[in-house]
Amino acid sequence: MSDLRIAVLGVGVMGADHVARITSRISGAHVAVVNDYLPEKAAEVAAAIPGARVANDPFDAIIADDVDAVLLATPGPTHEKQLLACLEQGKPVLCEKPLTTDSASSLEVVRREAELETPLIQVGFMRRFDPEYQHLKALIDGGELGQPLVMHCVHRNPAVPPTFTSAMVVKDSLVHEVDVTRFLFSEEIASVQIVRPAANPAAPTGLQDPQIAIFRTASGRHVDVELFVTTGVAYEVRTEVVGELGSATIGLDVGLVRKSAPGSWGGRITPGFRERFGTAYDIELQRWVDAVRSGVNVDGPTAWDGYAAAAVCEAGVKSLESGERVDIELAERVGT
Amino acid sequence: MSDLRIAVLGVGVMGADHVARITSRISGAHVAVVNDYLPEKAAEVAAAIPGARVANDPFDAIIADDVDAVLLATPGPTHEKQLLACLEQGKPVLCEKPLTTDSASSLEVVRREAELETPLIQVGFMRRFDPEYQHLKALIDGGELGQPLVMHCVHRNPAVPPTFTSAMVVKDSLVHEVDVTRFLFSEEIASVQIVRPAANPAAPTGLQDPQIAIFRTASGRHVDVELFVTTGVAYEVRTEVVGELGSATIGLDVGLVRKSAPGSWGGRITPGFRERFGTAYDIELQRWVDAVRSGVNVDGPTAWDGYAAAAVCEAGVKSLESGERVDIELAERVGT
Amino acid sequence: MSDLRIAVLGVGVMGADHVARITSRISGAHVAVVNDYLPEKAAEVAAAIPGARVANDPFDAIIADDVDAVLLATPGPTHEKQLLACLEQGKPVLCEKPLTTDSASSLEVVRREAELETPLIQVGFMRRFDPEYQHLKALIDGGELGQPLVMHCVHRNPAVPPTFTSAMVVKDSLVHEVDVTRFLFSEEIASVQIVRPAANPAAPTGLQDPQIAIFRTASGRHVDVELFVTTGVAYEVRTEVVGELGSATIGLDVGLVRKSAPGSWGGRITPGFRERFGTAYDIELQRWVDAVRSGVNVDGPTAWDGYAAAAVCEAGVKSLESGERVDIELAERVGT
Amino acid sequence: MSDLRIAVLGVGVMGADHVARITSRISGAHVAVVNDYLPEKAAEVAAAIPGARVANDPFDAIIADDVDAVLLATPGPTHEKQLLACLEQGKPVLCEKPLTTDSASSLEVVRREAELETPLIQVGFMRRFDPEYQHLKALIDGGELGQPLVMHCVHRNPAVPPTFTSAMVVKDSLVHEVDVTRFLFSEEIASVQIVRPAANPAAPTGLQDPQIAIFRTASGRHVDVELFVTTGVAYEVRTEVVGELGSATIGLDVGLVRKSAPGSWGGRITPGFRERFGTAYDIELQRWVDAVRSGVNVDGPTAWDGYAAAAVCEAGVKSLESGERVDIELAERVGT
Repeated sequence: MSDLRIAVLGVGVMGADHVARITSRISGAHVAVVNDYLPEKAAEVAAAIPGARVANDPFDAIIADDVDAVLLATPGPTHEKQLLACLEQGKPVLCEKPLTTDSASSLEVVRREAELETPLIQVGFMRRFDPEYQHLKALIDGGELGQPLVMHCVHRNPAVPPTFTSAMVVKDSLVHEVDVTRFLFSEEIASVQIVRPAANPAAPTGLQDPQIAIFRTASGRHVDVELFVTTGVAYEVRTEVVGELGSATIGLDVGLVRKSAPGSWGGRITPGFRERFGTAYDIELQRWVDAVRSGVNVDGPTAWDGYAAAAVCEAGVKSLESGERVDIELAERVGT
Repeated sequence: MSDLRIAVLGVGVMGADHVARITSRISGAHVAVVNDYLPEKAAEVAAAIPGARVANDPFDAIIADDVDAVLLATPGPTHEKQLLACLEQGKPVLCEKPLTTDSASSLEVVRREAELETPLIQVGFMRRFDPEYQHLKALIDGGELGQPLVMHCVHRNPAVPPTFTSAMVVKDSLVHEVDVTRFLFSEEIASVQIVRPAANPAAPTGLQDPQIAIFRTASGRHVDVELFVTTGVAYEVRTEVVGELGSATIGLDVGLVRKSAPGSWGGRITPGFRERFGTAYDIELQRWVDAVRSGVNVDGPTAWDGYAAAAVCEAGVKSLESGERVDIELAERVGT
Repeated sequence: MSDLRIAVLGVGVMGADHVARITSRISGAHVAVVNDYLPEKAAEVAAAIPGARVANDPFDAIIADDVDAVLLATPGPTHEKQLLACLEQGKPVLCEKPLTTDSASSLEVVRREAELETPLIQVGFMRRFDPEYQHLKALIDGGELGQPLVMHCVHRNPAVPPTFTSAMVVKDSLVHEVDVTRFLFSEEIASVQIVRPAANPAAPTGLQDPQIAIFRTASGRHVDVELFVTTGVAYEVRTEVVGELGSATIGLDVGLVRKSAPGSWGGRITPGFRERFGTAYDIELQRWVDAVRSGVNVDGPTAWDGYAAAAVCEAGVKSLESGERVDIELAERVGT
Repeated sequence: MSDLRIAVLGVGVMGADHVARITSRISGAHVAVVNDYLPEKAAEVAAAIPGARVANDPFDAIIADDVDAVLLATPGPTHEKQLLACLEQGKPVLCEKPLTTDSASSLEVVRREAELETPLIQVGFMRRFDPEYQHLKALIDGGELGQPLVMHCVHRNPAVPPTFTSAMVVKDSLVHEVDVTRFLFSEEIASVQIVRPAANPAAPTGLQDPQIAIFRTASGRHVDVELFVTTGVAYEVRTEVVGELGSATIGLDVGLVRKSAPGSWGGRITPGFRERFGTAYDIELQRWVDAVRSGVNVDGPTAWDGYAAAAVCEAGVKSLESGERVDIELAERVGT
């Protein structure tokens, strides 16, 4: 099967990240076309990708014959028209959040897509793919927490740009917890309330920070979210689900921690070498491939490292038999 | 630059893992040739990879014109000859540990490679690429622990195959700690002693388990390693480095934990969304690419999810202004 | 100085605990008089305390010449009259919460006490004396979290008696968080709201459980409290204070955990042997005193344990010199 | 029963701690006689304890009629004679470690005691009374870890006095792990080896630090101990027991952490309010008793605190019914 040819519309922070992802870490796809409202930005990005070209107009990119699918990372206000163009062309599109900037236009997009025979739009709520959220979702769906009853969320940023507004806290930050709630509880949110506590003195004037959001779901579950985007500390995203049979928390920097009867707390030990070192193997192999392609050939343990290990293990086996300390005499160092 | 064409020799557990890695998670390379001492195994693996072919003889694969580099995952006893063939052909090779099965032949390989102008062999000590070991190495090299003085390691497996022997504990498990010691301390190991405590009653007869290995490095540092391969619990690999200025431990399932003056312990909070959700973005994009290529188009949040989020955020912004609870009325569900 | 002679009124669960505390773990006081509305209960408790007597009427106990101070552990509705009697007698009283069962009568008690020259009433909000709350309070008052902005509390019980009502969740459980808020923030609570999520199916019919309480303090700080008294798991009391400069959490079963710039999380290592083993020394000495008083003389390590330790250390010093393993030959065991 | 009258011999750091303990935190005993080789030190300590007197000669204290039992906190070399005097007098004695300074004299003391009808000597290995060691011991004895196989210990001090010698690391620090090994494994230690790694550059010249001790028990179990007394960090005492069915660690500043099949790690949640707040209640009551005895009467929450809590709970119950926010109007503040 040939590679998927993707048009990336918008190569700001998120778009550029996605370009790097498609180019270096994803198999089966490559960036064919790059578009940005700053043409020089698009040109710069395209120049670094073998075979990619620039499109000056996003709609040209969408309809182009050498584009199989579209990745939408443009500003929110442009999404509606670009999504509709993708639908018209029958081209699959991965749309960074938000779908559109208001619910009326979002609904219009949903309805247009529903008229087609096949869905074409995926929205970029990436937390659903995070291993911790996946683990939490599996715990809930597997019934291990019983019926979920309450959820506590924390969304903290160390800082935000000076242009950040109180409404952006809702639309850009809270939106993730909106999706997390719907994803984990598999139901809609029935009401929302935003509480405005006394503000952080360090927050820019006019920015209501922190904010507390309170959701009530269709079935009456309670969710509260602390939104605090000028903490000065770090990026903290935490979710605790409290169910009939126990509670579980993710985002503590220690994996999923669960509390359950009979009065124990704890997590799961990495079960095997694949889970523990899978990422290490991926990095090892990618770096070796890159080293070989660039003519360096080795970017990791050398043959000497292999020899030294062999010598120590040989001595170890001797000591295993005698129980005594065995000295190791290495040959004079050669090679790298 | 064209893709690196790799011959994978040996497609048992490790080799097959590497094939999957090259095919689905690594960019810039593909599997061109597959070899295994079981021809039907090689055929089965090659059949699943577009463009890959089988080589019945590993040496044919090494010399083949359509092979740029070799990944060696054959049994240890075959490594020496295959490595020497790679050297002769001037082909880069990533060799799963061990380099060879004894130090004399390993040294021979090292010397042959040293006669070439460029190194060709990399050994598969993958822990050097693990983010936790990288973090620990950076801490040591940055001087933040002061001079390292002592290291405690634990290597535990829940179980081993019935054919596992006491010497294999040294050669297959301890070998990793040999490399970790050399990697972290940047010096050779001068002596080794294996202590044999009273055995685990659950260990197979004849298997000395647990074992305690004690290293003394060239500069006199002490390293102890608990090797226990029939714990029945999980895969646990733990390393604690004790230095002049504090200690740090990895492998606790909670990231690197550090103890330092003035009497505090702790770790690092994930600093930003890239670190926290980078893997989620990778998975999201790979799954979307796979879905589009297979004609399903969507494998994640749908347009409806985007609409529902827009509706809640809209209500949230209203509540931000009024401070009151705002009810949400969604349209009738359409689409997927 | 002679011991304080205390009258304990009410020897149900809490009162009986306090009697044990005064008798075995507190110095400078003893229980002189015991009263309960069940006279046989009072008699049984008094019989076990050398020198204690029963009072059939709580007011007789309060005015008795052989009573210096009163510990009030009677049901809440009786508190008002008993407190006023203590004030009239000028006797100090430690009153288990609540002070009284409504705010009007509480205010009356406050005003009567204010007419005296010296305060006499202490209320049993014991969390203020808990080392973790003390640590958190010190962190806040020392300015290390900056201005506190938000607080999240969790109050969970595994189960409650079948007679427990929705209002008791507020009056018996939430009351502690009311005091914690006032204690930590040093200000009054200006408003309260109780949210009623869909109930735990396992909760007794008619009991609203969980409940979410939301406080707004006089200066506008936000506090939320999850109250969940039928979790089936364990007793969990957790408090997280989020301030301008970082956050700190207690009640995680791991001491106080703090998050602060530059992006680190952690706690304090027990600084010295007094902090680490102070409780062990207390227990050791109390058990030895009890053993000697009962004629057993020893309740801990024996002389033989001392001898065996001496033998091992002697061998250890020899090995310290030689570096070799030294065998230990103990004498034949004598004594206990 | 009347109080136990204790003679405290030696009021250096440990002895003075014990005096404070007996006087303020232990019930059923008081310090009757104080002795020290520095008479002015003894006089100073005795002066602060109502009813205590000084003895200039330790042997006078041991034989005194107003002494029921002896607490020995004198330097180790004086222990033997003082212990024998206690045995002669038939007086119970709690002897700080070491029993005596060599195994021959220790054995002599053991034998003399064995000739009596009742044991009189208890040795101050206080770790046996520490809740974490007790928990670990219970886990082992309850069979929950299966047969214990290996133990790893760490004993770290931030600093030691300049007079500290290499042998004192063994006799004063390692001695605790000697007793811990014997206590947890219920068997004798058969051999000991001290490994001397390259020393900490920050350690005083001549002090071998760190040291690694290796024990082999009578049944062949392996124990290793890192002794490191100039870490500059904090006081760290850690013990990990590895058994057939899992492992458990104490001394991580997070309670006992256990790893067990099927691949989980974790601890116990404080089960109830007695365990969680028992110490708080003890402190509360002791401080109240002290406040009343000193005429201050209140050292904790006041009647006003009780009133404010009543007002908030009253509003809470109203909100529980209405679901709406209820404002709280407190009376004007009176009293303290």
